[in-house]
Amino acid sequence: MHELRTVEWVNGKVRMIDQTRLPYKLMYVTFKDHRKVAKAIRAMVVRGAPAIGVAAAMGLALAAEANRAKTREQFMNELRAAANVLRMSRPTAWNLFWAVDRILRKAEASTSSPSETSREIVEEAQKMADEDVHANRRIGEFGAALLQDGDRVLTHCNAGTLATVSYGTALAPIRTAVMQGKKVQVFATETRPRLQGAKLTTFELLRDKIPVTLIVDGAAGYVMSRGLVSKVIVGADRITRRLVANKVGTYLLALAAEANHIPFYVAAPSSTFHLQGDQIDLKIEERGAQEVTHIAGKRIVPKGVEVFNPAFDLTPVELVEGFITENGVLTPEMLRAGPPML
Amino acid sequence: MHELRTVEWVNGKVRMIDQTRLPYKLMYVTFKDHRKVAKAIRAMVVRGAPAIGVAAAMGLALAAEANRAKTREQFMNELRAAANVLRMSRPTAWNLFWAVDRILRKAEASTSSPSETSREIVEEAQKMADEDVHANRRIGEFGAALLQDGDRVLTHCNAGTLATVSYGTALAPIRTAVMQGKKVQVFATETRPRLQGAKLTTFELLRDKIPVTLIVDGAAGYVMSRGLVSKVIVGADRITRRLVANKVGTYLLALAAEANHIPFYVAAPSSTFHLQGDQIDLKIEERGAQEVTHIAGKRIVPKGVEVFNPAFDLTPVELVEGFITENGVLTPEMLRAGPPML
Repeated sequence: MHELRTVEWVNGKVRMIDQTRLPYKLMYVTFKDHRKVAKAIRAMVVRGAPAIGVAAAMGLALAAEANRAKTREQFMNELRAAANVLRMSRPTAWNLFWAVDRILRKAEASTSSPSETSREIVEEAQKMADEDVHANRRIGEFGAALLQDGDRVLTHCNAGTLATVSYGTALAPIRTAVMQGKKVQVFATETRPRLQGAKLTTFELLRDKIPVTLIVDGAAGYVMSRGLVSKVIVGADRITRRLVANKVGTYLLALAAEANHIPFYVAAPSSTFHLQGDQIDLKIEERGAQEVTHIAGKRIVPKGVEVFNPAFDLTPVELVEGFITENGVLTPEMLRAGPPML
Repeated sequence: MHELRTVEWVNGKVRMIDQTRLPYKLMYVTFKDHRKVAKAIRAMVVRGAPAIGVAAAMGLALAAEANRAKTREQFMNELRAAANVLRMSRPTAWNLFWAVDRILRKAEASTSSPSETSREIVEEAQKMADEDVHANRRIGEFGAALLQDGDRVLTHCNAGTLATVSYGTALAPIRTAVMQGKKVQVFATETRPRLQGAKLTTFELLRDKIPVTLIVDGAAGYVMSRGLVSKVIVGADRITRRLVANKVGTYLLALAAEANHIPFYVAAPSSTFHLQGDQIDLKIEERGAQEVTHIAGKRIVPKGVEVFNPAFDLTPVELVEGFITENGVLTPEMLRAGPPML
């Protein structure tokens, strides 16, 4: 079976898997306007911090291409305006800001014509996509070394191929361990409200023939207390020296892992780490009530009920056994010291 | 607005609210056969440990009435057979076994004719319904004393009127506190897979005009870490000296409450306590995969995914600040000592 590519630069356009259609249909959508890319990020057509980052970089590349015939000043103004549109699509994933800034810096550093700079930007965005896949393969190798034959790994949300350009972050160690011949089973939490675990993680793992058992989010503590889980691996949207922002529910999993002496790992590329940042710039996105009140188009809640729908939560780094990155496995202590490789 | 009565003896029949139709329709169903009552318990037409207990007692009363013309031996055999059918409807809630045993003991102790014994059993079952409401009012009083003006109480699943004959267990302190003039807000977790929080708790609290905010189960840790919750109160299906069995997800809430220094209370009548029991007779019900794979009749999960669907989990009593009962508030230490009032 061919390897999925979540977001890709194809013939001057950005092509992505429409994740709102999964698991029912594997469909691709193609954009030529950076505003459409921003909208797709907001609507979670593409989601997962690393995939959002690359999608935003490619969105900027679209803006560059659209303005390559302008003066340098106009070109840069258009690029900065597009960067702002993309930055505002979602507030939590650090990869988005990292990716937009990297492209902007590239443009600012360039002394070439807008047309030539645009070519460089398109190349840079594609390079970032390739780097993401490479980083995930490395995360897979470092993470697989932590997994043993017979391990039962619980994961949350989707931090797989579909959350990245390909191969995944939290699912990468599992994939690599399975390829090394280890037997690994996965518990996937369904991950309300958007059900990324139920819809996307199961879809990916079934496709790769990796055994997966689906549970509701609330059952995670029970499966841990019953001894059914030997490791927990999740992805991340932003990592600071003190906190991990990840899909809402992650913090509960970290607490249950600690209470049951189960190692809790966070797998993420260096583009997710914002070690200079603190809680103040860390915005936890609150999404619409309809994600909670309606499922599959049907209202499940009486009218008039107030809803609070934070998309992420914050896990103190002390609860993390190790951060699995493309540069190795870091402890929370190393994180606080600020490792030079990040 | 009139007070709802979840399960009631009406003209020789058992009448109950069909909770599978809520919040869309408030409908009643009536049964004259104990096997139909057992089926209703299994299908969660009636649910919540205290409501299940009273429904089972009334189911036995139906069996008694149906056999009142038989010999004493035949009558007792039919009653014991009906008791077994009802006991097998659901395995976890202690109230079910407590209620069935209480009715059987009443019958065994009686020296009257089957017809007269049957009359006594019908009376006993109705008495148990009244006792349940009375116990809940007392739980409300003891629990309200723990609540302050401005409290924001998080609750899980539905431990309200609909989980009892009326007034509720976990929701009783909130109702009483509000009647005392205290401002209390509620956070209700939606409680996958059956969504009792989203469908039933919101329905009840909207009806009583008590402010309620709905969150997904995974968001409970975040709202606690953000300081939005001042108390947690849940119900219980069975309480032993060491463990509280309650709706799956409860254990995660208890861990998050502890980590955030938020008092975690369990509200339950003495009929939920099985202090002579231990973990060995404590069966955690596993329900069908369809509760997880389908929502509102629509499949949300790819075909072929394995599902594990435990209906309850186990919380160590050490995580409980107090057990709010009709006889007062007990600490875990008092529970271990085996209080005479239970």
